[in-house]
This record gives sequence, C-alpha cells and structure tokens, in this order.
Amino acid sequence: MADLVIGADLGGTSTRVALADADGALLATASAGGGNPTSHGADRAAAELGIAVKRALDGFDPRRVRAAVLGVAGAGALDDPGAARLFDEAVGGSGLAVRPDFLSDAEVAYCSATPRPSGTLLLAGTGAKAARVRDRRVQATADGFGWLLGDHGSGFWLGREAVRAVLAAIDGTGPETSLTGTVPGRLLDRPLDRPAYRRRYAVIRAVAARPPVALAGLAVLVAEAEAAGDEVATSICDRAAAHLVRTIGEVREPGERGPLVLNGGVVRSPHSPVGRRVRRLIAERFAGEVLTPADGIAGAVWLAVRAARPQWSEERLAAIHARLTGA
Amino acid sequence: MADLVIGADLGGTSTRVALADADGALLATASAGGGNPTSHGADRAAAELGIAVKRALDGFDPRRVRAAVLGVAGAGALDDPGAARLFDEAVGGSGLAVRPDFLSDAEVAYCSATPRPSGTLLLAGTGAKAARVRDRRVQATADGFGWLLGDHGSGFWLGREAVRAVLAAIDGTGPETSLTGTVPGRLLDRPLDRPAYRRRYAVIRAVAARPPVALAGLAVLVAEAEAAGDEVATSICDRAAAHLVRTIGEVREPGERGPLVLNGGVVRSPHSPVGRRVRRLIAERFAGEVLTPADGIAGAVWLAVRAARPQWSEERLAAIHARLTGA
Repeated sequence: MADLVIGADLGGTSTRVALADADGALLATASAGGGNPTSHGADRAAAELGIAVKRALDGFDPRRVRAAVLGVAGAGALDDPGAARLFDEAVGGSGLAVRPDFLSDAEVAYCSATPRPSGTLLLAGTGAKAARVRDRRVQATADGFGWLLGDHGSGFWLGREAVRAVLAAIDGTGPETSLTGTVPGRLLDRPLDRPAYRRRYAVIRAVAARPPVALAGLAVLVAEAEAAGDEVATSICDRAAAHLVRTIGEVREPGERGPLVLNGGVVRSPHSPVGRRVRRLIAERFAGEVLTPADGIAGAVWLAVRAARPQWSEERLAAIHARLTGA
Repeated sequence: MADLVIGADLGGTSTRVALADADGALLATASAGGGNPTSHGADRAAAELGIAVKRALDGFDPRRVRAAVLGVAGAGALDDPGAARLFDEAVGGSGLAVRPDFLSDAEVAYCSATPRPSGTLLLAGTGAKAARVRDRRVQATADGFGWLLGDHGSGFWLGREAVRAVLAAIDGTGPETSLTGTVPGRLLDRPLDRPAYRRRYAVIRAVAARPPVALAGLAVLVAEAEAAGDEVATSICDRAAAHLVRTIGEVREPGERGPLVLNGGVVRSPHSPVGRRVRRLIAERFAGEVLTPADGIAGAVWLAVRAARPQWSEERLAAIHARLTGA
C-alpha cells in the first residue's frame, strides 16, 4: 500500500484537511468548523480538527499516513501543554501512527508561495505582521501585536483611521473627506443631520457598540474613496503602506534577497490601493521576488511530502510544489 | 428666606452635590455612586443623582434653590431625549422649582480654574481631549475620541506604548528598556523565563484578558522608568507631550491669549514627566497663563451663583470664584 500524507489549514472560519499521496496528488479533502485555538478555544478547535481528519481519511487506512503538517492560525495557544495535548489527541484519535507537526499559519502561507527555504512574509488582513523565515520556520516576527496594541497598516487600522478622519472633519480639525458621508452611513441607521457635537458623539457611540475588530469592515470604504481620488483616503493608504513596509524592514536583514511573500486582503492584490503602494515601496527598498501564496493547504501538503520523503532532491520537491500551487 | 444654589460634579466614581448660598458659601455637601451616564447608563446615573440631591437638600426648602449647575462626565449621552428626561426628573423629584443646567465636565473643569470666560482646556487622564472655551461653553473640541479611536497622549496611550515597547524589545525590533522587567511583572503572575516567542504571546494574552482601559494603569511605570533615565520611557513621554500639545493646537486660535487649563492625572502636576514636557512646549508655542482647576464642584457652584445673580459685577463674581477655589 502506497504512503499517504496529510496537510491541513486551521483558520478562523474553517478547518480544512487534505489527504494526498507521497507525490502530493490529492486523494481527498474534508472540512469542519473554525479551528483557531486562540479565538475559538483549544477544545472546540481540536474537536473540529478531529472531525475533519476523520472525514478526510474515510475509506483509507490511517496507518498508511507517513507525515501530517497542520498550519494553525492562533498557534500561540498551543504553547499551553494542555491545548497541545488536545490537538495531538484530536489527530491521534483517527488512528494515525505519526505525530502531527503543528506550524503557524505564517509558516504554511510562506511555503504555499515558494519552495525556497528562506525569505520574508508580510501578512496584512484584519491584522498585520511580518515574519523572517529561515529553513521554512519563523525565526523572528515584527508587529502582529493585535488590534489593541498594534497591527499598524492592517484592515483594522485602515478602518480606524477612516473613523478618525471623519471625526476630525466633523470637528473641523482635519480636512473634508468623502468618508464623512460613507463611514457614518455604514455605522449608523439614520443620516447625520445633527449639529457637529452630536454627530461626533453618534459616530463614537456607534463604533463603541460593535466589536472593535468590526472596524476592519470599513477598510473597503477607504479603498473606494482612494479610487475616487479622495485626498484623505489617499493619505491613509500612503501611511498604511509605509507602516507595513517598516514592519517588513524590522525582520528583513540587510542585503537579504529571498522572496517576499505578501498575504492577506490588504496587500494580496497588486491592484488594491495598499497592495500597489507596498509593492512600489518594496521595489525601492528591498531586493527579492514578490510573491503571493496559493491556498494554504497546498503548502501544508507540500511540507508533509517533504517530511515523508527526506531523501528526495530539492528539484523533485520543487516540481511537486509547482504542481500543488498551480505555479 | 435667602436664595440657594446647587453645584454638582457627576463623575465615573461618584456623584457629588453641593448646596450653597447665593454668595457661594457652602451649606451642605452630599455624594452618591458614579454618575457618568455614558459608562453607567442613564437610568443608574440619574438614580444616583437623585439620591445625592435629596441628601444635600436635607433640612432645606428646595423651592429656595434659584439655580442648579451640574457638570456631567459623559454628557454626550444626554443628547438622547430619554436620558435627558431621566436626569431632569431625578433633580425635579427633589422639589426644585428651577430647571437644572447640565454642562460637560470640561466646561465645569475650565470654570473651576478661572473666572475668565474664554480660553483652552486640556484634559489628559485615562483619555485625552482639548476644548476651545468661549463664554464658558465648549465651542470646539479636538481628540477625545476614546481609547479605541484616539486619546493620543493619554494615560491609556502611555500604557499601550509601554506594552508596545516591551513587545518590540522582546522581538528585537526595538531597543532594550527597563519596562521589559516592570510591565510584564504588573501584567503576569509569573516571571517571563521563557523563549522570546512565548514571552511575546504571554504579554499579548495578558493584555487581552483585561479590559482595554486597564492599560492606563501601566502609565505610572512609564513615569517611574523616565525618572530613572530609561531612554525608551523618555521617548514615550516626549511623544505623549507632543501629541497633547498638537491636540491643544487644533482648538487654540492663532494669537489667542486666554488661560490654558490643564486637568487630569497625566498633566496636572508640573512635576510629572508629561506635565513638565507639556508646560515646556506650551511656553514655546502659546501665549497665556497655564492653570490647573480646583475641585470641579467649585466651578459648578460658581456657575450656579452666576446664574442666580446675573446682575452682579464680574469683580464681585471673581472674588467669589477666588474664595470658592481657594485661589
């Protein structure tokens, strides 16, 4: 019976598991509920993982699995020995004979973009962080402190700056902006036809009534205003890109030439306002190819193939990477 | 029977009410629980106000009260007609024949510092805002957006910057600082004897486990580190003062010479690290006397005297102000 491998992507919205042969050819995929142990709790996330692994293995002998690599959003929670044991048990309960390898989502995202062992990852979605990758492991990170403490240049940050710009325009301490129309329209259920001091209070109260991370939902309004030429939105995008490139600079070593992997809704597309600016600043400041990752599950499967076939050449593994990621 | 006035200070921790004669001589004081309608809810805050007013009036005929001025922290909540009615009823329930005048805590704090009608207030405690005062009313404000959206240079901001500096030092992306010892000591119940990636996660998790405003409690560690010569803490205090003076500049008009009133734990003392820096920057940039307010209740009583005695000269009222505020 041929060897099998498992690759998985445990994210905030779903847990996805792929079963492949040792050449990385997919045999089965399965999914279950959100698997981020930090946001969902380790016990709930581990239970979802157990369900998804069992589904993916349905009809296959679990003892044929030679390696399992799981990329985990919120992997910091697995520093807790109790949480790590729950995750080990969730996979072990399927009858696997190998111990799974839990990596951070950053490591798996990086490996989904490139077979090269060392480079830099910028992740800018709701949050923002950069990671220095060496031998496919995160060696150092910058920012990623969360919305309360940092994540400068993230979707959350863009939304918060949009509200700040609106409040400054209402107060008369900042320039006029089209965001003054669109942001309160998204936050409130009635028009802002009140005097300034009431409008400012209504906006602050509307933001306070929602979970703070919901501010990330306003980032799209900044992008729309920027596309329409709004100067305040343009300045917000300029500052976001400057923050993100500064964060990259905190982990990227001088003279480094490895790939620069951009992931997350704020920077993934080269056509988005911040993604465009970040690429321009990167070209001015750093050497190295700019890449975006394929689906995280491709990187996880590829890492599992590497683990199952340590004797294979890098050329052979790179060809499998290209096939898995559609490159 | 001689006329009476009421002055009150409704804050987050207590509701304090003073009864005085028309010359501002205090006859009775009373207090009740927190009276901030934004943080406590309008019904609970109004109930505490009703209790405190009744206590202050105990033994006096409420129909003798000619004016009542109440300074309200979180006064924006009274824009809601339902909340305003609850507050009116809470005072009216004591049998007062006059309608109370609800002012913002900023207006009362300003009037507690000076009898002059126009100037600038900087409030920097847990939050931070500046107000342009004209004829003893707030005409414009800057910042005061709350910890989620702004309050740059506030106690919250100082505490957050302290944690950010610790995370950067742990990550190796920022300079070493003595805060790396003191801040985690305050946040965690065990020493940080773990590898860097675990320490960073432990600090972020400890902050996330508390209410965000609890970060303001770390501001004192910044002041201690600054006093001991820590360069990172010094830089945080420099930036806090620059933020606060920029916020003043957003409401203070060019050439304005009215008093500059500093209130709140971050700036009140001229010996505190941020208070010292703010005074130095103010002296460089603005004309006008720098003052700190007396107890807010003094300003409220004085404004009630003004309302009860519109025919009195400013000289006479200024003398009453000096007596009430101990100036």
